[in-house]
Amino acid sequence: MKKYILTLLGITLAGGAAAQLKPEEAIKFRQSAYTTMAWNMHRIKDNVEGKYNKDEVIKAANVIQSIANSGLGSLYLPGTDKGKGWKETRLKPELFKAENREKVGKLATNFSREANEMAKVAATGDAAAAKTQFGKLGETCKACHDDFRTKE
Amino acid sequence: MKKYILTLLGITLAGGAAAQLKPEEAIKFRQSAYTTMAWNMHRIKDNVEGKYNKDEVIKAANVIQSIANSGLGSLYLPGTDKGKGWKETRLKPELFKAENREKVGKLATNFSREANEMAKVAATGDAAAAKTQFGKLGETCKACHDDFRTKE
Repeated sequence: MKKYILTLLGITLAGGAAAQLKPEEAIKFRQSAYTTMAWNMHRIKDNVEGKYNKDEVIKAANVIQSIANSGLGSLYLPGTDKGKGWKETRLKPELFKAENREKVGKLATNFSREANEMAKVAATGDAAAAKTQFGKLGETCKACHDDFRTKE
Repeated sequence: MKKYILTLLGITLAGGAAAQLKPEEAIKFRQSAYTTMAWNMHRIKDNVEGKYNKDEVIKAANVIQSIANSGLGSLYLPGTDKGKGWKETRLKPELFKAENREKVGKLATNFSREANEMAKVAATGDAAAAKTQFGKLGETCKACHDDFRTKE
């Protein structure tokens, strides 16, 4: 089951690295990675809604792209819909359910694709295109939050 | 002073984005970014000390590189040697002192340079070279921690 989920998310366990993580470590790394992306989403937002600085958007988009492609799936250890990293996880147990496998895989793929596109668009310096792509990327974040993260 | 530090760290404030952050937000984003790098340093370590998986190391090195070049300096707002993000910051006030300006700038430059080199070496798939470069990169992390982070 674990291997199946990881495979769906495009993850291969290498050298047992991910397997060695404790649940609370996986949750903390997960929360850190998503908060780092949130910082950079805010930066892009500020730029597309205000004065546009190409370099700033490139840097921010590169962070999001690298994390989106880092193998985040390896941090979703079975059972980590409960537990505390920096704080209690908001992950819903539904993420691990067999009937959602295909959906979860699709959400992860969509997110990576739009993060890659965001980095490409950022590199062009086209502020209007960046704004449009930022919206598309945000939709892929929201799609997963809507189904698999509890409300605060 | 703030502008001077940010300039030293290679940061330009764009659209007022960084300036809008509250101290506790800056600290939380900082802690998240460094913890995300720590996750990926652990991944590289596991690979260079165990079974080497080229793709895993590339992904991890890309995360570290993108964060190292993201403009972390903008998160070191004056006064944030005190305050709580996910937890109390361990940043020493010495980071903001005039006599350390040159040193801080050099530490930041060294870190970015070695993170860029780590990503380059990772792309070659040369496990021995990756191990050597991982050591060099770790030294640049430690150099800053030694001087500007309190012991736990």
